[in-house]
Amino acid sequence: MTDPRDRSLTLDPAYDAAGLVTAVVTDRVGALLMVAHMNAEALAATQATGEATFWSRSRQRLWKKGETSGNVLRVVEMRIDCDQDALWLIADPAGPACHTGAASCFYRRIDGDRLIPVT
Amino acid sequence: MTDPRDRSLTLDPAYDAAGLVTAVVTDRVGALLMVAHMNAEALAATQATGEATFWSRSRQRLWKKGETSGNVLRVVEMRIDCDQDALWLIADPAGPACHTGAASCFYRRIDGDRLIPVT
Repeated sequence: MTDPRDRSLTLDPAYDAAGLVTAVVTDRVGALLMVAHMNAEALAATQATGEATFWSRSRQRLWKKGETSGNVLRVVEMRIDCDQDALWLIADPAGPACHTGAASCFYRRIDGDRLIPVT
Repeated sequence: MTDPRDRSLTLDPAYDAAGLVTAVVTDRVGALLMVAHMNAEALAATQATGEATFWSRSRQRLWKKGETSGNVLRVVEMRIDCDQDALWLIADPAGPACHTGAASCFYRRIDGDRLIPVT
């Protein structure tokens, strides 16, 4: 609990063994849109372009969200957590964030072992 | 993109090689409080007690948030994302979510290479 990253005022992401940090995206009103991962290159691309770019673990390549669908995420603000292994992107989505067509990837509520679509 | 978990109405978390899924906690108004991890046991404990319980990767044990500080997270609703490898907990925090004393672990905004405390 004495990680110097906790109170540092310098960006120093604590990348994991795969070179990744978790990236959580919400809209401006706090709806959780998606969770993905970034490596240093994805973070730099996101900062340079203002549009969310992630590292696709399944495809093992940089992945600009919306590169094919057009549903980009324009970043309004980025924050980092205490131990600097998770990023919070507040973003304006150009369209549905989920590849299923839902506005959010979190479109199902958990009720015991069942999932209930919401909105 | 044809993962059957995408549209399933049955809870079937896609645990990673370490047996974990990502767990994102917001409050009711959408402030991102913290990001942690759950294994099946932590998820079951959270569902059974209504208070967020995680798997501590650093301590390699179940970790009920607030077990020492008293700052528990009472779960209002849980959701899961399309490919079922991330959980969203909407929770009422009993106190500051961050061990630094900040209300949220995400208490610093990123500005280039600098971090700027907010609120």
